[in-house]
This record gives sequence, structure tokens and C-alpha cells, in this order.
Amino acid sequence: MSVIFNIPHLSIELTETLQTKIDHKTKPLGALGQLESLALQIGLCQNTLSPQLSQPCLIIFAGDHGIVESGVSAYPQVVTAQMVSNFLAGGAAISVFAKQHNLDLWIVDAGVNADINPHEQLIAAKIAKGTQNFLTQPAMAMTQCLAAMQAGADIILQRYSAGCNCIGFGEMGIANTSSAAMLMQCITAIPLPQCVGRGTGLDDGQLQHKLSILEQAIAHHGTLTDPLTILSTFGGFEIAMMVGAYLKAAELKMLCMVDGFIGTAALLVASKLYANVLDYCVFSHVSNEQGHQALLSYLDGKALLKLDLRLGEGSGIALAYPLVQSAVLFLNDMATFDEAQVAGKNTPL
Amino acid sequence: MSVIFNIPHLSIELTETLQTKIDHKTKPLGALGQLESLALQIGLCQNTLSPQLSQPCLIIFAGDHGIVESGVSAYPQVVTAQMVSNFLAGGAAISVFAKQHNLDLWIVDAGVNADINPHEQLIAAKIAKGTQNFLTQPAMAMTQCLAAMQAGADIILQRYSAGCNCIGFGEMGIANTSSAAMLMQCITAIPLPQCVGRGTGLDDGQLQHKLSILEQAIAHHGTLTDPLTILSTFGGFEIAMMVGAYLKAAELKMLCMVDGFIGTAALLVASKLYANVLDYCVFSHVSNEQGHQALLSYLDGKALLKLDLRLGEGSGIALAYPLVQSAVLFLNDMATFDEAQVAGKNTPL
Repeated sequence: MSVIFNIPHLSIELTETLQTKIDHKTKPLGALGQLESLALQIGLCQNTLSPQLSQPCLIIFAGDHGIVESGVSAYPQVVTAQMVSNFLAGGAAISVFAKQHNLDLWIVDAGVNADINPHEQLIAAKIAKGTQNFLTQPAMAMTQCLAAMQAGADIILQRYSAGCNCIGFGEMGIANTSSAAMLMQCITAIPLPQCVGRGTGLDDGQLQHKLSILEQAIAHHGTLTDPLTILSTFGGFEIAMMVGAYLKAAELKMLCMVDGFIGTAALLVASKLYANVLDYCVFSHVSNEQGHQALLSYLDGKALLKLDLRLGEGSGIALAYPLVQSAVLFLNDMATFDEAQVAGKNTPL
Repeated sequence: MSVIFNIPHLSIELTETLQTKIDHKTKPLGALGQLESLALQIGLCQNTLSPQLSQPCLIIFAGDHGIVESGVSAYPQVVTAQMVSNFLAGGAAISVFAKQHNLDLWIVDAGVNADINPHEQLIAAKIAKGTQNFLTQPAMAMTQCLAAMQAGADIILQRYSAGCNCIGFGEMGIANTSSAAMLMQCITAIPLPQCVGRGTGLDDGQLQHKLSILEQAIAHHGTLTDPLTILSTFGGFEIAMMVGAYLKAAELKMLCMVDGFIGTAALLVASKLYANVLDYCVFSHVSNEQGHQALLSYLDGKALLKLDLRLGEGSGIALAYPLVQSAVLFLNDMATFDEAQVAGKNTPL
């Protein structure tokens, strides 16, 4: 069993024509800053001078983590399931922000440790009721890891078939900053203390405890180098599903919006499997969680927002989405100097 | 003749109640970062636990500058009038972004050096056809300066009377980064080279020339300390109108969104007249124009966006507006831990 993707490099055929289109708009050269590089990327992604965002969609993958029993989180495990209910009831931050921007919101039960009642926005894809505690054993079997990746890919194919070409991935899973920190450490070799943060709000003592638990887990499993082994050993079902989701979305040349620390850690794993996945990704924000800035730097990613968020759920994606929309709109709708009969730079007085 | 405002400190009566409301939402404490302080500010501004954004409006003040004849801009003066036409025709960046976010867009002819045809979005308030060249004389007479401030105040009162409670000010005026740099230098005493930037895209030689011209202007006028004298000596009609606009909007407790370098320089002058004006201001972005970050630091302002923009027109305001909207929405629409039956922090497993 294995999960294979075919992800081409971003087509650069239109680079020059797109840049010329951007440069002729009625504004000083480069004056729209990061929106200009974003417009270029989206144009290349869709291989067109007039890209469109169609059926933008946000998918939250939820899963539970065995490591929670080692006391690494400020919140109890039951909060994962409770927050899934909150997403579905429309009461969470992401519910509010997705509605604000007309993002199609789906919640995936990737492996919540509870039975979740059916709901029209819920996708039931539970691998198991939470992972094992990676302090003493791999979080999941390799078959589970691959099944999760496949499930993520399948969900993306469904959205694509429904007409979506711009997608973002959020997550919910009590203790999943521990998983993400382990993935980051194993893959980047950045020292663990720089990968481990306060998550949902640990105090100094709790943070020290979390770090110590994660150090023990590293010692227990020894040095791992294969990305899939790292993912199955320390990941979560929601993270493995996100890995498959990124890869499938990139294969389909969808624009992928990346959220915070956990979403970026999942992308890190995906990028070690298929480096080209990064060509299709937009980093929505840099979060306040320790490690996220370093992770973005490692991936050479520049975030759109820096608002000291540390919520997950895909909230940063929803907040950054209007900027992606603005990039597409200025590219399509702004007048050129010629059209507007505006004089250019260095024209005599 | 004089222009008097009555701007109270932000009412802090509801601070604690608002903070409690924010803290009980289903998210870790502080996890929405800057959106939380923004929600608090907007609540205090409107003195309510459930603020609303009503008829959000963006006003672009346009004016010409005599200093342009000294060769301080990469674009000719005629571009000011041409861009006003472009705003009205819907082809400019701000036209596109204002439409995207349903912002009511108005263009004010504060002193463009051309006759502008009437248009339903145009407010005719021309003080004169451009300012004098401040290299050798004050940019405007004090009576003109006060008339411009009064006109700005009157325009804001009209929007307020029409139901607007959230307003942003953009500008257009070839050479107005020179004006803004002079205002900044005179008021903050930050050395001129740190106040002077490339504007619409000066090359190294042109930048050096701009700096040299502005140094001569400072030498010519000597040390000025009165904010109104500084404004009339080095300002523009669009800048003086913005000063009056900020002050009136704050008097009416409207939320004021601040754009880039020129908008912030106008606010700097306003804040020297009435310091409380800052309580009602939201800094939309930090631009790439040299001096803007230092100016924000001087005003103790933290910007929402940092996207390397340097366009003016209020474009940063329009791009940041959805974040202001998100702050209001989460405060009003997110569920509390109790409502959603989600367990709190440090609840036992």
C-alpha cells in the first residue's frame, strides 16, 4: 500500500506576460508589494493571465492524540470533540470568519476520540479514536498513516470535482502542537526547545514538562529520517490527512492556503515527500506559537499576516483570504496606464 | 478664524466587561492576538459590548503641490488629476478594493491643479489649484489651511449624518511624500534622511535630489514649532483636509482607519493639536515608504498589515478593513465556553 502523487513544478510559461500585466496597472512599479507576487503565483498556478477563485473552501481536520495523557496540553482531550460540535454549530472563530468570507466550511473527523453525530458539514473519515501515546510507541501504524493520507487526498478530489480551486486546511486536536513540534524537530534538526511552544497557553512549568516529555519521546524512538516514518511515529490522524490533502491539492494545481504551526508542520512533511507542493502554497500568517517563524524560514515562506494569532482551526487562512481575493481582483480589474490615460513614470512635467 | 474640536478620551467604562466577553469566547486566552485589542478598542469607541460597523466609508483627498516643480517626484503633476479620473472611473487599486469590501468611496478635490468634471462620487472642495512651492514660501496661507481643515471636518460630518461610524482617509497628490516628510521632521525632530523616501519610485540620484531640496526648504523656513504653522508651511490641501477630517471623526467617536505615510503624517499633525484623536485610530498597515515605521513608532501605533505596500489612495485601509470587520464579528458572534459546552483550560483530563 502506498500513496503516490504526481506534482509538477509550477508552470512558468506565463511569468513574463503576467509580470508585464501587473507592471502596467495604474500604480508605481511594485507598489502593491506582496499582493503582486501573490497575483503572479496565482496566475502561474492556474496558468492564465486572468485567474479566478472558484468555490473557495476551508477544511478542518480533527483528531485526538495519545500524548495528551502525558500532560502536554492545558486543555483536556474532550475539547477536541466539543470544538467539533462548536464548529458545526457555528460558534467557533473559524465558523464566524468562514461565514464572513463565504468560505465553504467542512469538518473532517480524522480520528476524534468520540462518536460524532452526522451533520451536513461533517465528513466522517475516522481512522481510529485517537493515536497512541508516542512517548512509548508509534502514534499510528504505517497502514493507518497511509490510509489517513489517502482519505485526505480523496476529500480534496471531491472538493475539486465540485468546482473548488482554492483551498485551505485547518486543524483541531488537543495536544497537536506536540506532534507538530516533533515533526519539525525530526525533519529540520532545529533543536527541540525552539520547536516547542505554549500551545493553547501553558505556563512556564507546564511548558518545561511538555519539553521534557518530548525529549523523552525523541530518546525513545532514536533518530528517524524517513518522512513517512516520522509522520507515523509522531503525527496525528488530522496531520497525516492534511499531508495527503496538500499533496492532492497541489497535484490538481489548486491554490493551497496554509494556516499556523500545525498546518505548516504537515506541509513540511508533504514537502519532504514532494518538494513541488510548495509552489502551490500561500502562507496565510505567522503565528505566535514558538517555532512557527523558524518553520516558515526553513520553508522559505513569507506569511501574509502577522497578528499574534495562535488559534489554529484555519482561522489565519480565513483572515488572509480577502488578500488573496484582492490579488486576483487587482490583476483582473485595475486599469492600465494606457486605458486610464495616466502619464507614466519620469514623464516630463 | 480657527477650527475647534472637542475630542474626549476614549471612554474606558466598559474595558473590564468587554475584556471578560472576549476572554470567555471559545478560544485560548489571547489566541486571536491583535484582533482582540482591536475588538476592545472598537467596543470602547462605541461604548458598547456589541459594536457594529455602519456604512463604512473611504474618502480620498486629492491635492497638488508646488514643490513638484523642484523635481521631487518621479511622476508629473498631471497624474494627480488623471488618477482622480481613474478613481471615479473605477480603474484604480482603491476602486477595486473598496468595491470588494463594499466601502462607500468618495473622492474630494481638495486642491487639484485642474478642473475636475462633476461626478456623483466627487466632492468639490478645492481650496486652490495646488499649493505654493515651499522651497521659497509657505505652501499655503493660514486662512487656506484652516479652510481646508474646516472642509475636511464638514465632509466627515456629512458622512456621519448619513449613518457612517467607521471611516478611512486616503490621499492622492503628486509630491506629497515630500510634504509628509517635512511634517514628520518638523514635529518629531527625526533627522530628515530618515523621513525622506523614494515615494512613487525615485532612483538613488533622484532620492538624493529630493533630500537636498527638502534640506534647503528647512534651511529657508528655519525652526518651526507650532503644528498649524508647520502644516500651512509644508502641508498640502489634501493633508490639511485630512487633519480636519481625523479631528472631526474622533470628535464624533467614529473609528478612523489610517493608511500609509501621508495619512499618518496628517494624523501626526492632528495629534499635536488634540492628542486624544489617537484613541479612535486604527493603523491599517506599515508601508514600505522610508519613514513610515518610525512615524508609527513615534505615535506608538501598531499596524494590522505589513505587505510592502507603498501606494496610498487608502489602499492599505481597504485591505485591512476585513480584519476590523472580523474583530467585530468574533466579539458579537462567537460562542462562549458555557454556551458551546466546551471545557476550559486546566480542566482535569
